[in-house]
Amino acid sequence: MSCPAISRRKALHVAIVGVGLVGKEVISQILASRHPFALVALCNSKRMILTSGPGSSPPCFNPSRWEDVLAASSTPADLPVLQNALAQLVKDGKRAVLVDNTASEEIASTYPQFLNAGVHVVTPNKKAFSGEGDYYLRLIGGSGDEARAEGGVLERGRFLNEATVGAGLPIVSTLRDLVETGDKIKKIEGVFSGTMSYIFNNFSTGGSGGISFSDVVAQAKQNGYTEPNPMDDLNGADVARKLSILSRMIDPSMLALLPHGYKSVETQSLIPPELESVNDGDTFMQRLPAFDTKIAKLREEAAAEGCVSRYVGIIDVENKVVKAGLEKYPTTHAFASSLGGSDNIIMFHTERYSPRPLIVQGAGAGAAVTAMGVMSDLLKLF
Amino acid sequence: MSCPAISRRKALHVAIVGVGLVGKEVISQILASRHPFALVALCNSKRMILTSGPGSSPPCFNPSRWEDVLAASSTPADLPVLQNALAQLVKDGKRAVLVDNTASEEIASTYPQFLNAGVHVVTPNKKAFSGEGDYYLRLIGGSGDEARAEGGVLERGRFLNEATVGAGLPIVSTLRDLVETGDKIKKIEGVFSGTMSYIFNNFSTGGSGGISFSDVVAQAKQNGYTEPNPMDDLNGADVARKLSILSRMIDPSMLALLPHGYKSVETQSLIPPELESVNDGDTFMQRLPAFDTKIAKLREEAAAEGCVSRYVGIIDVENKVVKAGLEKYPTTHAFASSLGGSDNIIMFHTERYSPRPLIVQGAGAGAAVTAMGVMSDLLKLF
Ligand SMILES: NC(=O)c1ccc[n+]([C@@H]2O[C@H](COP(=O)([O-])OP(=O)(O)OC[C@H]3O[C@@H](n4cnc5c(N)ncnc54)[C@H](OP(=O)(O)O)[C@@H]3O)[C@@H](O)[C@H]2O)c1
Ligand SMILES: NC(=O)c1ccc[n+]([C@@H]2O[C@H](COP(=O)([O-])OP(=O)(O)OC[C@H]3O[C@@H](n4cnc5c(N)ncnc54)[C@H](OP(=O)(O)O)[C@@H]3O)[C@@H](O)[C@H]2O)c1
Repeated sequence: MSCPAISRRKALHVAIVGVGLVGKEVISQILASRHPFALVALCNSKRMILTSGPGSSPPCFNPSRWEDVLAASSTPADLPVLQNALAQLVKDGKRAVLVDNTASEEIASTYPQFLNAGVHVVTPNKKAFSGEGDYYLRLIGGSGDEARAEGGVLERGRFLNEATVGAGLPIVSTLRDLVETGDKIKKIEGVFSGTMSYIFNNFSTGGSGGISFSDVVAQAKQNGYTEPNPMDDLNGADVARKLSILSRMIDPSMLALLPHGYKSVETQSLIPPELESVNDGDTFMQRLPAFDTKIAKLREEAAAEGCVSRYVGIIDVENKVVKAGLEKYPTTHAFASSLGGSDNIIMFHTERYSPRPLIVQGAGAGAAVTAMGVMSDLLKLF
Repeated sequence: MSCPAISRRKALHVAIVGVGLVGKEVISQILASRHPFALVALCNSKRMILTSGPGSSPPCFNPSRWEDVLAASSTPADLPVLQNALAQLVKDGKRAVLVDNTASEEIASTYPQFLNAGVHVVTPNKKAFSGEGDYYLRLIGGSGDEARAEGGVLERGRFLNEATVGAGLPIVSTLRDLVETGDKIKKIEGVFSGTMSYIFNNFSTGGSGGISFSDVVAQAKQNGYTEPNPMDDLNGADVARKLSILSRMIDPSMLALLPHGYKSVETQSLIPPELESVNDGDTFMQRLPAFDTKIAKLREEAAAEGCVSRYVGIIDVENKVVKAGLEKYPTTHAFASSLGGSDNIIMFHTERYSPRPLIVQGAGAGAAVTAMGVMSDLLKLF
């Protein structure tokens, strides 16, 4: 596949940067696919395999042994070299795509160069679409389909990022379809973080008592539902990034609302102010129990109203509000009654889907489902 | 758009057959789109507008006045002529698609000719994919992507039918992504009929009493949730057709399980056997109350177990069973607690989405959302 296939008609030439949990799974889904993928490059933070263009080596490799080949490669990771090689493929009339499975800001900052060279970009990396407004405009700038259709010799590449919001769940593509077919988005509301879902599904079940907040966070950490440092989940930034990605797809007024991307989202952090300066997860976990009483009060307040607490993201298009934080929902609400485990649930309230929303629900994290989101974008390119 | 645009690069040439509730809405979504659509033909059961190829007339038309132009057209509806015109466009290096917004078996039977001529087919018409196995194989026969990629000069067209199962809900595309990325489907279970959803959401709410079955059917009819003759909903055939469409996408063993398409699905009809020979809806509605006691018993039985009755479709891949009929669900189950109105809900239980399924929920019928499903397929062709 990684060499003989290159000459195949309609083949999609794929360069994969980032071969961690998600990247590995993307590679194995590609290798198992019946579609004509040609794996032309693999890259981690140190080295790469590049089978095409100047500076390439080796000329071929056995894809099922990619881990060994990459580990033994003497070619240093070099994004400009990779970019030149992909750009050359496009110039030669072939189709090429960069798949970025890192969380790197640096790599995200290079997407416009790939796109302008006619290379597609597919990624689960949230950094690009949720960052500064200026950069966002450079990213999508010339990428409107119209511009492409009427463009010059070289078509700009497509940027696809399904996996950034719900991993394998059809969230980005559903919003795109709603918007592109002329529906009016009124409100998007959901539990966007698997970690927050797990924590609050267990912490707040409708009663006024229950497990302590620090215990449930410790449990989530132990079960692998948090980042290595749980502060990175509890600060709400991940939810804010997802809201920023979706908001910008809706219309220019929503884009204008978030000039600094996720930083412009009204975000409630669950890190007690006293612990904000803590640097390591262990210290944070040790000191968290001191704040249990405070957060248990929120649970009591919710219970007194027949509600549960949930950490949700809300994009209120009509009122121009984008916020992430704790809200109360009646125990009969889907966020309380039909949510379990670490599932995400997203409700699209639109002109057409009204009074009842379009709902998508399911696991929103994990390597296999995230890779599925990446693959679903790759399949759109055939 | 319907003439000057034809020469535009990458334009998608669209022929629309069927301009009823859904067709009208598809046209208006196309006219409002920023994508380079070129409307080359419109056709109802009597006449057509055809702006391309031999026998075409008029050469151009104002798309916003299409209804008048079609009404005044002297060109009789003629599918072979339409097919020739689209095939010619493809031969000239252009991209063309047939959009079938009819419920016609006859038109569905012509898809293979369009596809083999390189014309794409997009449709909300369930007839083709849920019919006889032989025909189904002709439909998909040479259409595997692999065959296309390695094919001769002429690529076979793509067949896309998102709207056939959940209208605008992402059901077909989600199943396709799951299957194509190597997930294993264990079971698909859902409320697939808006009519059945409305009827049972109101008829069976967990108690042993309530509105009579004939009253709720009358109410559904009055609110426009049923076919002109409600027998066409109550026989379960629509659900069986949707199950057949999805089953065949899963794997060859599921295809083999349904040699006669929807007719091979184990289907429970809610038409009392005594009324099966009734031909008109009015007589049926008059005679239905005589059977209220019998069906109320099912509600009582469910209630005695803390359950509600729902008319569901089940594709049990592990046990090789495809069936449509009444099942009981605990009042806490999503089919009871979070379903309302005439919404559909579909759960995908897979190897990756386990133990909790991937769920899609929302309105599964209506002209605007069905047209959105059609459009989402058309957008995949850019
Ligand atoms: N895991 C999930 O459930 C999930 C869900 C949704 C989205 N995502 C997103 O998916 C992405 C990948 O997640 P992951 O869990 O697979 O991460 P991971 O296991 O930490 O893997 C990251 C990979 O990226 C490589 N990398 C980092 N910086 C690089 C650079 N500057 N140049 C080249 N390679 C670089 C690393 O190389 P080394 O091995 O050399 O360090 C490693 O191979 C992230 O953006 C994450 O937010 C993940
Ligand atoms: N409405 C929904 O909510 C929904 C949801 C999912 C799927 N669908 C499917 O969408 C399709 C269209 O539904 P609809 O509600 O729009 O139906 P409709 O209002 O009855 O419109 C049908 C259209 O098809 C035309 N037609 C019928 N037979 C034809 C033939 N042999 N040649 C050319 N034109 C023909 C009719 O022409 P005349 O005007 O000359 O009779 C009419 O324009 C059906 O397959 C339906 O099952 C509908």
